[in-house]
Amino acid sequence: MTKIKNNSPVLFFYNNSKKWLAKISKKESFHTHIGVLKHADAIGKEYGSRLMTNKDKYVYLLEPTMYDYVMKIQHGTQIVYPKDIGYIIARAGIGDGQKILEIGTGSGSLTSFVASVVKPRGHVYTFDVDENFMRIAAKNIKKAGVSKYVTQHNLDLKTAKKMPLEEMDVAIIDLGDPWVVIPQVRKMLKGSGTMFAICPTMNQLEKLTLALVENEFTDIESTEHIIRTIEAREGKTRHSFQGIGHTTYLCFARKAFFGRKTRKSAETPKVPVTSKKTPSKTVKKTSTKITKKTVQKPRKKQPKNLPSPSLIL
Amino acid sequence: MTKIKNNSPVLFFYNNSKKWLAKISKKESFHTHIGVLKHADAIGKEYGSRLMTNKDKYVYLLEPTMYDYVMKIQHGTQIVYPKDIGYIIARAGIGDGQKILEIGTGSGSLTSFVASVVKPRGHVYTFDVDENFMRIAAKNIKKAGVSKYVTQHNLDLKTAKKMPLEEMDVAIIDLGDPWVVIPQVRKMLKGSGTMFAICPTMNQLEKLTLALVENEFTDIESTEHIIRTIEAREGKTRHSFQGIGHTTYLCFARKAFFGRKTRKSAETPKVPVTSKKTPSKTVKKTSTKITKKTVQKPRKKQPKNLPSPSLIL
Amino acid sequence: MTKIKNNSPVLFFYNNSKKWLAKISKKESFHTHIGVLKHADAIGKEYGSRLMTNKDKYVYLLEPTMYDYVMKIQHGTQIVYPKDIGYIIARAGIGDGQKILEIGTGSGSLTSFVASVVKPRGHVYTFDVDENFMRIAAKNIKKAGVSKYVTQHNLDLKTAKKMPLEEMDVAIIDLGDPWVVIPQVRKMLKGSGTMFAICPTMNQLEKLTLALVENEFTDIESTEHIIRTIEAREGKTRHSFQGIGHTTYLCFARKAFFGRKTRKSAETPKVPVTSKKTPSKTVKKTSTKITKKTVQKPRKKQPKNLPSPSLIL
Amino acid sequence: MTKIKNNSPVLFFYNNSKKWLAKISKKESFHTHIGVLKHADAIGKEYGSRLMTNKDKYVYLLEPTMYDYVMKIQHGTQIVYPKDIGYIIARAGIGDGQKILEIGTGSGSLTSFVASVVKPRGHVYTFDVDENFMRIAAKNIKKAGVSKYVTQHNLDLKTAKKMPLEEMDVAIIDLGDPWVVIPQVRKMLKGSGTMFAICPTMNQLEKLTLALVENEFTDIESTEHIIRTIEAREGKTRHSFQGIGHTTYLCFARKAFFGRKTRKSAETPKVPVTSKKTPSKTVKKTSTKITKKTVQKPRKKQPKNLPSPSLIL
Repeated sequence: MTKIKNNSPVLFFYNNSKKWLAKISKKESFHTHIGVLKHADAIGKEYGSRLMTNKDKYVYLLEPTMYDYVMKIQHGTQIVYPKDIGYIIARAGIGDGQKILEIGTGSGSLTSFVASVVKPRGHVYTFDVDENFMRIAAKNIKKAGVSKYVTQHNLDLKTAKKMPLEEMDVAIIDLGDPWVVIPQVRKMLKGSGTMFAICPTMNQLEKLTLALVENEFTDIESTEHIIRTIEAREGKTRHSFQGIGHTTYLCFARKAFFGRKTRKSAETPKVPVTSKKTPSKTVKKTSTKITKKTVQKPRKKQPKNLPSPSLIL
Repeated sequence: MTKIKNNSPVLFFYNNSKKWLAKISKKESFHTHIGVLKHADAIGKEYGSRLMTNKDKYVYLLEPTMYDYVMKIQHGTQIVYPKDIGYIIARAGIGDGQKILEIGTGSGSLTSFVASVVKPRGHVYTFDVDENFMRIAAKNIKKAGVSKYVTQHNLDLKTAKKMPLEEMDVAIIDLGDPWVVIPQVRKMLKGSGTMFAICPTMNQLEKLTLALVENEFTDIESTEHIIRTIEAREGKTRHSFQGIGHTTYLCFARKAFFGRKTRKSAETPKVPVTSKKTPSKTVKKTSTKITKKTVQKPRKKQPKNLPSPSLIL
Repeated sequence: MTKIKNNSPVLFFYNNSKKWLAKISKKESFHTHIGVLKHADAIGKEYGSRLMTNKDKYVYLLEPTMYDYVMKIQHGTQIVYPKDIGYIIARAGIGDGQKILEIGTGSGSLTSFVASVVKPRGHVYTFDVDENFMRIAAKNIKKAGVSKYVTQHNLDLKTAKKMPLEEMDVAIIDLGDPWVVIPQVRKMLKGSGTMFAICPTMNQLEKLTLALVENEFTDIESTEHIIRTIEAREGKTRHSFQGIGHTTYLCFARKAFFGRKTRKSAETPKVPVTSKKTPSKTVKKTSTKITKKTVQKPRKKQPKNLPSPSLIL
Repeated sequence: MTKIKNNSPVLFFYNNSKKWLAKISKKESFHTHIGVLKHADAIGKEYGSRLMTNKDKYVYLLEPTMYDYVMKIQHGTQIVYPKDIGYIIARAGIGDGQKILEIGTGSGSLTSFVASVVKPRGHVYTFDVDENFMRIAAKNIKKAGVSKYVTQHNLDLKTAKKMPLEEMDVAIIDLGDPWVVIPQVRKMLKGSGTMFAICPTMNQLEKLTLALVENEFTDIESTEHIIRTIEAREGKTRHSFQGIGHTTYLCFARKAFFGRKTRKSAETPKVPVTSKKTPSKTVKKTSTKITKKTVQKPRKKQPKNLPSPSLIL
């Protein structure tokens, strides 16, 4: 049984929209609309206990999880939601001991979560170019307790001559133009290693997919993840009237070797096709392969969705 | 660069519905509708390379991830999908070093995935009552390479007198009647520890929620997770015509102490309310608290959704 | 080309959350946060034109559609959304000339929409028991211009001895306990006529389905309808960050004759089973028939979702 | 009570995937996997009755609704689903008496449904360019019993000099390149009239939206509609394991007058912007207006989703 002490981290939980993450500090107290919460009152209690405010409301004293840190870090920012982080981890099979490349550190929340999964034998190498944000991320990663398993790089991989890493298990890209770094990502990934990109728009998915095919990735898969809350109550269970909107789409792929001509050419990554006017024939052909269930066919004249006559009774 | 050797695990990947997981065995080969795949041909190649069949088709030789093991284990069974596993990990904040209780081992796929995340310092304790299935799970857990981090218990917790574990970080329940073991789960969880239940039906969510309130859990949250595939193709990007159906709902909660009367009573878990005819007043009251956004109100007579007169122009 | 005149109905449209429905009245003007809108300024303009406020903002002068009336009527009430109304019309095949029974008039919005579709040769017969709300509905139906095609009944069908109607094409039920009136609905529907019920909770669907089977309905189908907004913008198209939550589930069925014993018994509707303690064997059996894709099977002992051994490699 | 006679239309309903639409013809019978169905046996029965096959299975004899015709027509073709048809009708407020323009007749199923709603005082004018398909559509429209309310035009509106119609209430476009006919649609629509386009891809939505802004449409709204089946069964209610995939996105807009310079210019529709290399400044500006909730902001350098520093604790 763990008792809360001075310096213990605590999530003061009132409800899902009112909760406060803090380190207990004997003399502190903070004012909320539900009353004053005195840190000293928490000391000696077991995690999970109630704490009363001076307004006769109570909060629960919860031991913070990595979820709580991630939600806290992200408060008010463009966020990577747990539903999306979770899918990245499950689909890429991220686990203890893996080496993760992250391009676009941002607030450090995804960085922290992934580090907590790959530690202690794995590591997250994360890249950004904005020193100001890197400082913020450093603080957040420290608060989440995973600094030891994260290395922050201030380097613009788009223009870098030499890649600073190799044989990475997984690369996570959170940039506005992820397709630009695919050749670099390829160089740093191990054979059949995984690429995941956070793409808030459909146009990003489209451009990225072209670049992935051009750079010899396989098993390319774009998905979106919808979470719906259910209010389970005796005799009147239903989905929540409150909807949860779009967060981001995700794009997954694995590094392959197409062996197009010689292995050599495969090792020299292509400039992403999106910078060309006309996609090369090779891309066209391969691109067809990834869309097996193509139902819509090219049409001539007035291209209405028309039934084949033979199918009509 | 990792070359494939004899005994290396390989995922022969043709596409997402045609893929085969195997350990390379020099003399083996297997017959598929796309031709014969000779294991020997894979030896010496780098992961990610293509392998030709005798029918001039090719597969990619991928290094299996935990995702690939989980999907393989589950082939043809009632499955826990990566989208759901991922949310469990992200929402519960599962990471290195945690002690996980699992009730309902099943095929061992969720067990394996969670073990790969909490290892090497954490552990999964998993319970089942069917010896036959326990043997199958043992094999699967071994194939996934995480036996060292998993302990299988053949014990019916529903009738067990004494709980064999305590201070668990997270409990995952995959039973048809999860509400029955909530008192036991409570005893084994640490303060503010997390409970997650896999509930394929709405009725399970409803009964479980009542039992959780009765047994002093807080932050109770039921969700469902929808994954949609997007076909990102130049100039014709859209969702997949192929839909993905229901898998399961998930129920999350954290152990709290309501301090109703004395702490003592909180330590003596209640018999789940669902076995009673009339839920006690206490439950009724608390149950109201978890449904803040209640919009539907009780009605008399012909209970039509009626507007309040003052709102009509 | 239709010019706006005194007394013309106009939707002053600023955006989807700021819009005002009014009848033009020469001397009127109204104050909004975007400035004063003078009715007189609209007179003589073509529908679709802009009208400037005194704050240099503009609204569009749109000719109201039935959608605009429905959304206006429902402002601030428990609403039936266009997505749900639309599905009811399409699935039931509602069109000109049909006789519609509605139980639960509410604000009269669904009533109005359906009337606009079945007119001029069809009719909506709508029942409620609250005189106050019936007056409100009458006003709304009048504003929508369909009073001629609607008859309002103040009658509690649950206790009514004799049904006032027969040979209805479609019955729409919007009550909290729709299962209670299924025998009455059956009596008023024509052979193979359609029943649609608006059920905000899963529990309603469950109880109603039982009552429908017991009362010899077929093709029973429960659905939910999710609408998602897409922000289509050059180079950054994506779903809206704003989500749309749950509105209601819908239950559809068609009146049949099971011919269980004699036709006579089929004509004497059953008391809904939900009022009995144990559902009769007949129900059990029939109820199984409507769930063809049943995947979950009954389990013994610890009912974990277990794979069949033969399916495991 | 309507009895089935020779020549009556009947839907032989076994279940939702096995059903047959036919006109009763005394001497006919047809063979199915559930046995032989003799038309003669249906004569004299009431709609809703059971008919036994020679294999002791039964079907229900249902009176076909417009839904049944639409689903039948569309069998095996690229379909417009009831969920999408329903939303078009509800959102556009389609009802008795309206004049509807349809571009892209296809199989005539949407044509038939809309005709059944606007009749007897309204009319559907539908355009296609493929004579073969027009013949098929004519047959289907006849079977659905609405030929009187539909006029089929064999005319390519894209190249037509003079528009054959004016003051249409609603225009429905089902073409692969809907943006091409927006100027023509504008000419034929009444002021504040409604445009609806069936767009299976995101790219179509994007191009169409640009053309709509350029051609002075307002209230532009792109949506998608997801239908989910729920299996409501006593004690085990849940969504269907069978998912329903993507059908189409829908784009809605209303004709306005921006009054940019003179009314005259508004009457001379623009060539859709998508045919230009660089969208004009005007479009850019207006296009911004329709995306009020823009959250993503333009970024410089490495455009990672970055939190604002002040929001981080």
